[in-house]
Amino acid sequence: MEERNGSDIEAEGLMSEKKELESNGSSFSDREISPIKEPLLKSRTNNTSQIAIVGANVCPIESLDYEIVENELLKQDWRSEKKVEIFKYVVLKWTLALLIGLSTGLVGFFSNIAVENIAGFKLLLTSNLMLKDRYYQAFAAYASCNMVLAIAAAALCAYIAPAAAGSGIPEVKAYLNGVDDHSILAPSTLFVKIFGSIFGVAAGFAVGKEGPMVHTGACIASFLGQGGSRKWRSALLWRSFFTTAVVAVVLRSLIEFCRSGKCGSFGQGGLIMFDVNSAEPTYNTPDILAVILLGIIGGIFGSLYNFLVVKVLHTYSIINERGPTFKTLLVITISLLTSCCSFGLPWLAKCTPCPVGLDHECPTIGRSGNFKNFQCKSGHYNDLSSLFLNTNDDAIRNLFSSGNEKEFHFSTLFIFFVAIFCLGIITSGIAIPSGLFIPVILAGASYGRLLGTFLRYMSNLDVGLFALLGAASFLGGTMRMTVSLCVMLLELTNNLLMLPLVMLVLLVSKTVGDSFNKGVYDQIVKMKGLPYMETHAEAEPYMKHLVARDVVSGPLITFSGVEKVGNIIHALKITRHNGFPVIDEPPFSDAPELCGLVLRSHLLVLLKGKKFTKKKVLTGTEILRRFHAGDFAKPGLGKGLKLDDLDMKDEEMEMYVDLHPITNTSPYTVVEMMSLAKAAVLFRQLGLRHLCVVPKTPGRPPIVGILTRHDFMPEHVLRLHPKIKPHK
Amino acid sequence: MEERNGSDIEAEGLMSEKKELESNGSSFSDREISPIKEPLLKSRTNNTSQIAIVGANVCPIESLDYEIVENELLKQDWRSEKKVEIFKYVVLKWTLALLIGLSTGLVGFFSNIAVENIAGFKLLLTSNLMLKDRYYQAFAAYASCNMVLAIAAAALCAYIAPAAAGSGIPEVKAYLNGVDDHSILAPSTLFVKIFGSIFGVAAGFAVGKEGPMVHTGACIASFLGQGGSRKWRSALLWRSFFTTAVVAVVLRSLIEFCRSGKCGSFGQGGLIMFDVNSAEPTYNTPDILAVILLGIIGGIFGSLYNFLVVKVLHTYSIINERGPTFKTLLVITISLLTSCCSFGLPWLAKCTPCPVGLDHECPTIGRSGNFKNFQCKSGHYNDLSSLFLNTNDDAIRNLFSSGNEKEFHFSTLFIFFVAIFCLGIITSGIAIPSGLFIPVILAGASYGRLLGTFLRYMSNLDVGLFALLGAASFLGGTMRMTVSLCVMLLELTNNLLMLPLVMLVLLVSKTVGDSFNKGVYDQIVKMKGLPYMETHAEAEPYMKHLVARDVVSGPLITFSGVEKVGNIIHALKITRHNGFPVIDEPPFSDAPELCGLVLRSHLLVLLKGKKFTKKKVLTGTEILRRFHAGDFAKPGLGKGLKLDDLDMKDEEMEMYVDLHPITNTSPYTVVEMMSLAKAAVLFRQLGLRHLCVVPKTPGRPPIVGILTRHDFMPEHVLRLHPKIKPHK
Repeated sequence: MEERNGSDIEAEGLMSEKKELESNGSSFSDREISPIKEPLLKSRTNNTSQIAIVGANVCPIESLDYEIVENELLKQDWRSEKKVEIFKYVVLKWTLALLIGLSTGLVGFFSNIAVENIAGFKLLLTSNLMLKDRYYQAFAAYASCNMVLAIAAAALCAYIAPAAAGSGIPEVKAYLNGVDDHSILAPSTLFVKIFGSIFGVAAGFAVGKEGPMVHTGACIASFLGQGGSRKWRSALLWRSFFTTAVVAVVLRSLIEFCRSGKCGSFGQGGLIMFDVNSAEPTYNTPDILAVILLGIIGGIFGSLYNFLVVKVLHTYSIINERGPTFKTLLVITISLLTSCCSFGLPWLAKCTPCPVGLDHECPTIGRSGNFKNFQCKSGHYNDLSSLFLNTNDDAIRNLFSSGNEKEFHFSTLFIFFVAIFCLGIITSGIAIPSGLFIPVILAGASYGRLLGTFLRYMSNLDVGLFALLGAASFLGGTMRMTVSLCVMLLELTNNLLMLPLVMLVLLVSKTVGDSFNKGVYDQIVKMKGLPYMETHAEAEPYMKHLVARDVVSGPLITFSGVEKVGNIIHALKITRHNGFPVIDEPPFSDAPELCGLVLRSHLLVLLKGKKFTKKKVLTGTEILRRFHAGDFAKPGLGKGLKLDDLDMKDEEMEMYVDLHPITNTSPYTVVEMMSLAKAAVLFRQLGLRHLCVVPKTPGRPPIVGILTRHDFMPEHVLRLHPKIKPHK
Repeated sequence: MEERNGSDIEAEGLMSEKKELESNGSSFSDREISPIKEPLLKSRTNNTSQIAIVGANVCPIESLDYEIVENELLKQDWRSEKKVEIFKYVVLKWTLALLIGLSTGLVGFFSNIAVENIAGFKLLLTSNLMLKDRYYQAFAAYASCNMVLAIAAAALCAYIAPAAAGSGIPEVKAYLNGVDDHSILAPSTLFVKIFGSIFGVAAGFAVGKEGPMVHTGACIASFLGQGGSRKWRSALLWRSFFTTAVVAVVLRSLIEFCRSGKCGSFGQGGLIMFDVNSAEPTYNTPDILAVILLGIIGGIFGSLYNFLVVKVLHTYSIINERGPTFKTLLVITISLLTSCCSFGLPWLAKCTPCPVGLDHECPTIGRSGNFKNFQCKSGHYNDLSSLFLNTNDDAIRNLFSSGNEKEFHFSTLFIFFVAIFCLGIITSGIAIPSGLFIPVILAGASYGRLLGTFLRYMSNLDVGLFALLGAASFLGGTMRMTVSLCVMLLELTNNLLMLPLVMLVLLVSKTVGDSFNKGVYDQIVKMKGLPYMETHAEAEPYMKHLVARDVVSGPLITFSGVEKVGNIIHALKITRHNGFPVIDEPPFSDAPELCGLVLRSHLLVLLKGKKFTKKKVLTGTEILRRFHAGDFAKPGLGKGLKLDDLDMKDEEMEMYVDLHPITNTSPYTVVEMMSLAKAAVLFRQLGLRHLCVVPKTPGRPPIVGILTRHDFMPEHVLRLHPKIKPHK
């Protein structure tokens, strides 16, 4: 649940409780016993959803807070900080980066080897049965292997960690944007993501392990960083670079180790998956035109894909909500369908005689490669089965392979494209860890190669290069992340000379796609209900016409600098707010003034410490002696204090506690007349969770309200101001 | 000059002027005729320097303002914006990106070809004379060619555009950080940067053209963007990517065109300068240790280099300040010294017999290549002259060349390293456009290759690869920009398999270098006096212990919402401030309140329009009809209004003007008790020029002061609070 979300019922409850408190007849003045002030603005509430779909489950979400809480305790900590502590901290953070790199490298390598070996075993079994002409048995073996693996993946996901379902990239993206859910980065999610991804990919689904690897890396870092979050701050680029270097070194050493054949039958490949160095990258005007055409096709197919993926996700979420059994049944259905496609469609392809003068065996038997025998007689190969009855990595490698233009028939490429396009769509959203990159690359490579075969007489570019550019175009059309895609494709292919062509095709496909809809991850984030905040204010042009005061929701609950324990407990109980303004009042100041902001988690720690006084006096120095900043550090997973952990006696409820030592005296503020667009920029750029709105005119209470992430969400704003048109 | 820099004398002047205004006996109340309020804080001034060294000259600097000025005019503009205008704007900005890409590509290609041909002519002339044993004549020809080119470069720099001297990267870095000087991006700077760089590089100096190219690109973009700055906003990544793609396409087409030999004798090379694909990148523990050793050496040499460069820059700036003649004389001296080194040192090297079984000619005559004849007899080559009597690009290519380990002697590499290290240092800071990358790469590559030759029996890595890693280590040790260096080195060498080694060496050298001093660009920025603001608050830890109010400088000049023209003119005359708070007062509001901020440039446009009234009344709607937002757009180079352009009659000085339509009603604000560190984060992250400080307690004037870039500068803060230790 989220801050500032007092529902109407809660607000009513609050008012009556307040009366009760007042009628208790305390000996203190009225001002002192009514810390919960009248709402300072018309009591409008924020009804935007505080839950979202994380993985395949609906969960409550919270905001993250990147702001430095500058309170007296922290300042005391700064002052007392010694050189040796700073040194220890530096060592710690580099060690952590090293450990993250090591673990991520190991996990990545392990999951690659596992997939290659499991899928390899399955494909060998099938292929051996087929060589003996036992086709039904072969299908039974193939489909049941797939089914068992699929059930394993689905069971892990459905029963242990529903947050591990799907690609994980939308969730990680939202997390980095400031949306937290307890389960996104939990250890159980990590476990399921790794094994679920291995089983899912090995089960022959049209899914990749790249997206899940991103999520896995995030989980590993979060797991290792438990309790170290107290001072975690920026300058990340430099440390990420280091971690990446560690991963690269670990992977290389392991790959070297495996070259000697110690890692099983299929342990091949390396950092550069598809070495297309051989293709000669010279090109002229017709080539450029062909590439632009590819980009346009990629943009159109990409936006269609996005549209359909979201429709399917909507449908599946209805099924998935019914419980783990339904999730598993859905996975089983899709697994059967996939098996039928993979095994059935190759029968449509004709047998082709092996080309003469090949360096390598044709047909390939008992290992991965281009030329699969399938039902054909010796000396012939079935080109469609080279794509279907292979690991996805090998299928991509086959499509990217250059030199032999006639290796794949028109019809083969067409059937494969249609099948993988549809399978990719219906597979997304089922309860297994499922990356989008691989199906998109497969579909893009197949239509790219198809177009290349068509344009053979016009363009000099190699069909393998066409397949690569087709993959780029479809990636650009679905994901719309030009720069990172460009880097990834270059990393995969190790040929910088292709840079201009890859850039061109990405630019065209992104532009075409953008004219239809948003990128697939943005759409999934929205569909899942994750309150994502765009960096640029232009995202929501109507915000320019509103000011901060127009969207602040209430009621606002404030505390005095020295507050009655009972009032605090009460406020924590009746609301889900995570930040409370602290107002200093006479006798501690001349007039009411904003002292700062306290966080719920800090209040709980302070109350647990029970440094209370009978009278309303300042006890800051005692509290500073009793606690140190580490006590208030962000706790590790599930270790945070809860309201129920406090055990207050009745007399303690009537005592006072000094909030000054834990009050963040430097909260970011905006004046109520600040334009909402500019407030949103401030909020987003500084990674805030709470933004205080202060009055413009004098003579009013010192705070108007607090803006949180949800107050910037279009649904909330448009509900408050129905006359505004959402899109100009 | 910079905003908020009222000196004490100005402040006094202001006070006496104010009394004069009051004693003029206007018919309005005292409040109305005293818009220039008493200083709201103790009158402390900011004495930080408002001038800096830009290129090789001392210039006044200003801050840039990335904030959107949300005033009524802009809002009216938004409301009236039609679809067709938005479309025109989108087309315009993409066209601009295309043009920038095209021009930058053309300029880059042109300057490369020019250098290759000029330097080629010079080297051919020298080499032909030497083949005829006319050594003195050869030296005379060589030295005088260099001298003429050096004088041309120096004259351009010293007399036309002093801002074009040096690398330009520190200036561009500061510009992007928000520090503007009129001349940084002026057309004259562009012109001199292109031709000065060509002449300087062709003159054989130990300088590169890469840094100047960065500056050139910035100048081109600024030149083409004239007048288009009104709406220029973020989402830059996507457009930069497009521009880069255009540059890549332009360059490739031109290089293809030149392959046919139409571009002169030396027009070679391409996007990938040093294709080291052949080197086998497998490595084991001793190799890793060797690479770490290289990194350590790079870090030590790099920080020494930085230290010496700054010392030399200090010394030279004293000479350069004496005028253009002294600048030119300095350049001539260094040119002579460079010629003597390049021509004299190769005599120290022994002649080596050409290796047997080479693919290419040895010695190479009449073109670029590895094996230079110099004084040797036929069939022999002088390895040191292959490095000295060559363009820098070819020298690097020679050092990176693999396969023939014995091509360069120990002594050769050692002499070259010492010479280029020293030449690089004494060449930086002379009045020519001079990039730092090339000398650093040369020095690094030579000690890398030297170490590789030493460790031949321990490490299997190729000496060419050692040279590359040496260059990486020295780059990392001087510039400390790991990620961009890594990308550059990969782009130059087109071999992603080296990624782990390059990352490792960069990490080690940066870490070692950081323990001695800061990166060379950071040091140059500081030495030049450019008020650079770090993104991270940790940069200046003492800021945590101060609050915004502690550094605000005064006196503060404010205007009323409807202000007397004479007062505005007066305020503009006596201060250099660029932003003035506008305070609404009775009868326009119940109590004094902060209306917003007006900019000097906007005030000048408004006053020029002369929409004045005799009485103090609101005339907003008339002004909105008279002006539109475009009138207040940021003007192109040198086209902005100046105070002298206004021609005010005496009766106009007594009239009133309504400032509301041009007042930015959404300025960013901080409360006076906000910690300075957090205010700095806000200031930097949002790219502000003015940050309003508002009072915390009620009953005081609605604004305490304005923070600008200079108020965050360490010199200012430490002068106000001498007890604070600058480094913890």
